[in-house]
Parts: sequence; C-alpha cells; structure tokens
Amino acid sequence: MVLKNAWAMKGHAFVREDVAIGEDGLIAEAAGGETIDCAGCLVMPALVNCHGHTAMTLVRGLGTGLPLQRWLNEAIFPVEAKMTPGDIACGMTWGALEMLAGGTATVADMYDFPEAGAAALSQAGMSGNLCRVGLDFGGGNPPGRLEECVKFVAAPQPANIVADFCLHSEYLTTPGFCRALAEANQKFRRPVHVHVSETALEHAECIERHGKTPMRYLCDLGVFDYGGYAAHCVYVTDEDLALMREKGVTLVHNPTSNLKLGSGVAPVAKALAMGVNVALGTDGCASNDNLDMFEEMHLASLLAKGMAKDPTVLTAWEVIDMATVNGAKALGYADRGAIAPGMRADLAVVDLKKFHLDPVLDLANLIVHSMHASDVAMTIAGGQVVYDRGRFPQLDVDAARAGFEASVKRLFAR
Amino acid sequence: MVLKNAWAMKGHAFVREDVAIGEDGLIAEAAGGETIDCAGCLVMPALVNCHGHTAMTLVRGLGTGLPLQRWLNEAIFPVEAKMTPGDIACGMTWGALEMLAGGTATVADMYDFPEAGAAALSQAGMSGNLCRVGLDFGGGNPPGRLEECVKFVAAPQPANIVADFCLHSEYLTTPGFCRALAEANQKFRRPVHVHVSETALEHAECIERHGKTPMRYLCDLGVFDYGGYAAHCVYVTDEDLALMREKGVTLVHNPTSNLKLGSGVAPVAKALAMGVNVALGTDGCASNDNLDMFEEMHLASLLAKGMAKDPTVLTAWEVIDMATVNGAKALGYADRGAIAPGMRADLAVVDLKKFHLDPVLDLANLIVHSMHASDVAMTIAGGQVVYDRGRFPQLDVDAARAGFEASVKRLFAR
Repeated sequence: MVLKNAWAMKGHAFVREDVAIGEDGLIAEAAGGETIDCAGCLVMPALVNCHGHTAMTLVRGLGTGLPLQRWLNEAIFPVEAKMTPGDIACGMTWGALEMLAGGTATVADMYDFPEAGAAALSQAGMSGNLCRVGLDFGGGNPPGRLEECVKFVAAPQPANIVADFCLHSEYLTTPGFCRALAEANQKFRRPVHVHVSETALEHAECIERHGKTPMRYLCDLGVFDYGGYAAHCVYVTDEDLALMREKGVTLVHNPTSNLKLGSGVAPVAKALAMGVNVALGTDGCASNDNLDMFEEMHLASLLAKGMAKDPTVLTAWEVIDMATVNGAKALGYADRGAIAPGMRADLAVVDLKKFHLDPVLDLANLIVHSMHASDVAMTIAGGQVVYDRGRFPQLDVDAARAGFEASVKRLFAR
Repeated sequence: MVLKNAWAMKGHAFVREDVAIGEDGLIAEAAGGETIDCAGCLVMPALVNCHGHTAMTLVRGLGTGLPLQRWLNEAIFPVEAKMTPGDIACGMTWGALEMLAGGTATVADMYDFPEAGAAALSQAGMSGNLCRVGLDFGGGNPPGRLEECVKFVAAPQPANIVADFCLHSEYLTTPGFCRALAEANQKFRRPVHVHVSETALEHAECIERHGKTPMRYLCDLGVFDYGGYAAHCVYVTDEDLALMREKGVTLVHNPTSNLKLGSGVAPVAKALAMGVNVALGTDGCASNDNLDMFEEMHLASLLAKGMAKDPTVLTAWEVIDMATVNGAKALGYADRGAIAPGMRADLAVVDLKKFHLDPVLDLANLIVHSMHASDVAMTIAGGQVVYDRGRFPQLDVDAARAGFEASVKRLFAR
C-alpha cells in the first residue's frame, strides 16, 4: 500500500513523501499494491494512549461533580460490581471504535476481566498492553490475585496484545504483594503499570505509612526493576523524578482526568527537563469524558504554559512526542511512534481541509492546538486500514452498538 | 419550521418536545412549514462567543511558543500592519464558517476595519457586536480615533450587527480618552468591550501608574456606566469583582488563550459566587488556535476544578450558561441564549450518535466534557439554517476559501 500526496511527519519535520507500507505491515522504502490518495492530508504516527480503563465507556460521565470518594463509592463502584466479562468486551469494543476513529492505535489498559478486554481490543485491530490488576487489601485479599496476575502475563495473548504486570497503587496493595509481584516479574521483565501520587492525600498517606513517597516505596520494593509506566504522578517530588529517570519509569500524564477530579497538574516540564520519559493517557472516561488523545495533547501544552506562566514552556514537538514515540517507548515498543522504514505501520491520516486547520503556518502547532480527534480521516494499524472516514472495515459497528447499549441498559437497570 | 424528535434544552432540563420556529425567526409555540427530523440529536441554544478577534484566522497559530512581547512585536504586529479591509473581510468570513459549523451564532469582535468585518459577518448569517477599537497612545495618537469610535457606533449597521464602544485596555489608552469615550456613550448607553487585567504585569503597572486596579480605574472614569464585557480578568481582585457586579460588567473568560500565552487562570468560580455575570470567549486564533466554544466550555470546567482541587466546583449547567444565556446578557440581548417562545431562534443541533457521546447518562455533562464543535450537525440563526452537515446555504465556501487563501498568501509574501 502507498499513501500518496500527503504531508508525512518524518522525525520533527513534515515532508512531501509517499509513505509505503509492505505486506508485512511495516513501513517500507517502496511498496506495490493499493494506492491511497492523501492529498490535503497529514500522515502522522498513530497515537499511543498510555493509561486507560477503556471499558469505562459503559459509565461515561457517571457521577460528575461528586467529590472523589463519593464519586467512587456511590457512582462508579456499584456499577462496576455488576460488570461481567461480556460487558467488558462491549465497553472495550466501544472505546476501541472511539480511539481508532480518533487516530489512536495502541492503549495501555488497566481493568477487570483483561482476557475479555484483550480479545475485544484485538478483534478491533488495536494494540494493547493489558494486565490483571494487582490488588491486596491486606491478608491476601482478594485471594489468589498474585497468581492471577502471573497467569495473565504467562498466557498466550491474541494478536497485537501484550500482557504486563500491574499494581493498582501503593494504597490498594501491601509491601508483601509488591515484593512478590516484583519477584515474579524477574522471569518476565515487563514494565509495570501503576497509579502513582495521583492525589495529595494518597501521596501524604504513603509517606505517613512507609516514611517515603509512593515512587521511592515502589522502587525500593523492586516493582520498577524492569521499568514501568506510572499514571498521574501529580505529586511526584524532584527526588521521585530522578528515580524515575534512573529506573526507566515513564510519567504518564493524564491532564483532563487530573483536572476534572480536582487532583492537580503533574510537573511535566520539569520531568522532561530532568530526562524522564513523559507520555500521555486519557484515563477512564468517567473522569475525562472521552478518549480523545488530541485533547490530551492540547491540554498538556496549555497547562504547562499556564502553570509556569511562560508561553515558551513545552514545544509542540515535545507534546507530539509524548503522544507518539514516548508512549511507544513507555510500553516497550521500539517499532512504533514514528514514520521510518522498518517501523510498524501504525498511522493516522488527518484531513487538513478544515476551517480550523487553515492556514497551515505551523503544522506541529496545529496538531497540538487546533486539531480534534474528528479530523482523523483514516487510521492504519499494523498496515491494515482499521478506520476510514466513518467506516470500520474489520468491525460490525451496528452489532457493537447493540451490544454496548444492552450492557449499559442492564448495568443501569433498577 | 419545526425541529422534531430531538432532545430540546429547556432551561436546565432536556425535554422531548418539538422546537417550532415562526416566520419571524423567533421560537414559537407551534409553526407550520418545513419539518426537520432531529432524531438522535440535541437542540440547544447556539453559543455566544463574547471575545474574539475573528479575522486573526489569517494568522492562526503564528508565533506560537514565543514570549508574549516577542509574539506581538515579531510575529503578530508586522503581519497585522499589512492587513487591508479586504483581508479582514476574508478572515472574518473564514472565522464565521468555523464558528457556524461549531454551533456559535454570535460573536463580540474587536479588530481593525470593523465595517468590513461587520459586512462579512452579516453576510455569513451570524450576529455580532463590533467596534472601532478605542486606542490612545498619548497626545491624541492615533489622531481622530475617538471620533471614529463614535462614528461607528452611530452608523447604521448591516443585519444582525450591533455597534458597541470599545477601549483596547487601560495600557493602550489615556485617562482623557477613557473619560471622553464614557461621555460619548451617555448618548448611546452601550456596554463597552475592554481587555482587563489579562497579565500580572499589566495589572501591576496600572496600579503603579494610577494607584488603582484597571477595573477600578475604568469604573472611576465612567467607562462601565452602562455595563460592559471585560475580556480575560485573570488578575481581578475581590474588590474588582464586587465592582463588576455593581456596574453590570461581565467577566469574559478566555481559558485557552490565557493558558497558551502563560497569563494564568481567571477566578471564575469566585466571580460566579459573588454574583458577577461570567461568559466565555475564544480570543483570537493566534492564541487559541481555533474558534471552538465547546473547547472553551470544557476547559472552563476542568480549570475551575483543577485549580480549586475540588471536583464539585462549577456545575455543567453553570458552564453551559456561560456559553449561552450569560453571553447573550453580556452583549445586551434579552432574546437569545435559551429556548422559549419569543426568543430568537439561534440554535445548535448536535448529533448525539457518536461513539464519544454514548451512553447519555448525563447530557449536560456530555455537552461540557465530551462534545466537540464537530458534533454540531446544524446551526440555525434567526430562524435561518446557516449550517447543515457541511453545507452553508447562504455562503459560497469555495469563494470564501479562495479569498482567504489569497489574503494569507499576500500577507506572508516575502
């Protein structure tokens, strides 16, 4: 396949070059087969969403405006308790449709019933890093959870799905559980997905309990011996950031969710200046309330500038890297997040013929500050067209909608 | 005309009621004529953009990342100096296309050559409050400006255009000019459009120069004797807010622009609590970089919650009011911003059949946190369909594009 007549993002530049995709699904120097006219379009790497609870599409916007603990206890948890693997599959498929239509081809997902989620995500043509959520409320409760985490990582996965370890957080696990998970990971050497220092309370209580910050605590227990991706990091200290760089832990910035829940703003500019890898995530769409990675780019740029009171903070390219190549690096992929021969052909084709994208004085700036998910015309994953101007060649959208709406109806039945 | 089968926003509720539009362009109890099926759609009041420099579409994103003074002096001003009335018309039309396609039907605009802007805006079917920008660098320079301001306010305007007075700001005018403008306005009694306390520097320098805040200074000179709409207000004090309530001055929040330029965040929640009218604006799209009022709603909600570290701050309805009825009130319109018999039929029809708008658990929340300008299917202004799923019945988009692109080319020619 060859994408013709587009502006292609190559490194930190835009060039008028065809993008060729070989039969192996990788970007090639040249290729035969179908030619797709991309005149008036931008071809950029597909986006990487580094922190999601994708099936929360089922509870989109639920409990908005409640204080955090009431939001969880009164709105979210009671509905989540009713969710079956079938619901998770429907919610995951629905989220995959939204993400693919918005140029996102990879997601790091943390939610219950990951087997069901993995199957649905794979079927939609997306890539994902999934996990069984590591939890220990104390005394080995829920029972057998560590074994389930290990079993999931060791199990064969469907196409384009990678199994990672996950610790929900310091506050929903015990030191013994963390240590055991770290030990189990010595065999698999996977990056670990964790919520870290999302709220001031969580950060302070960890220091009270353990005499150290969540990041220091997790590192000391070996959790990040093979790297990891730490969602939120709103309250990480300078020392935490130094540790993250040393251990290869990515700061996954979730600007929308952190604002909506009243948590705060992660120190992204400082993290980048200290050499920490910074990626972006949407979080679940009860606290967002969509899965639009362009919105996360936009917000990441604006917040960094607004908080520093300095418009020179965070360049457009730094933000684009966060949503593409840094995200790929966070999840352990050396083969995506950029357009170059040999890289996996995960691409977003963006229609520039829009009122709000004209004139093109600075295309990197347009991507970060003007573009919307809805400007994506086509998404290609592993060389396959998975989204094409409203159509999903590999998915029955009507069936997905019927399944999703039936799940929603059942979950909210009185 | 009758809009059938939609969810209609009536006050702070959504009801399954037809929306009838009479031949006078007002919402009616019942009406004949064309029936439009709006199944699966929301009908809401069209949005009111209370602060724009719309023709800055011509310089979209120009100079992003430069510090404020260099951004103005090196990027924006040199290009603006080349703009002709023809350029302003092209830039205004282009901005009107973007706004109409995103459900915005009224804009308060502050820019050069307002006659050209007014004609273009009116022709596109939008409403606008325009002005000749009040400036006085000292010694009556630029000469004759006050007379130009008065002449513009006194002149007949094209359909749906209202002429207001405008002071650029405290720092680009003199006390004498402010006083003279206030006096001239005693005849017209119009609200006055002003930039107020956008940056910390501007706020502090005013106090140094005059011993009072910009808001106190402007009020003391009589500028707001007939109300006004004050853009930005990032640094207004509690005393300023009390004055604004007393004088009927609207705080026009421009969250995107204030973040992107590193200015800060206006105290919106406090202003609302003190009874100040708060509306929303996009500002010019060199500091935004689009004219998407849904994005401003989204950001207003998120920032208020994130800055207060409290997810209960600013309800979705408070934010929707800011973008609709509060904006109408700011500009002196009692007849728009809500759906009720006798109100002007300025409506946005939003397609809810989108992945990111399903399920509809809380429609007000979806509007603020999930919706994009691109979800707008149809915009009606004064009872006329001005935008309908990609088409503009009253405008030749190809001609608009040709004119706009020719202006851009000329302005950036070396």
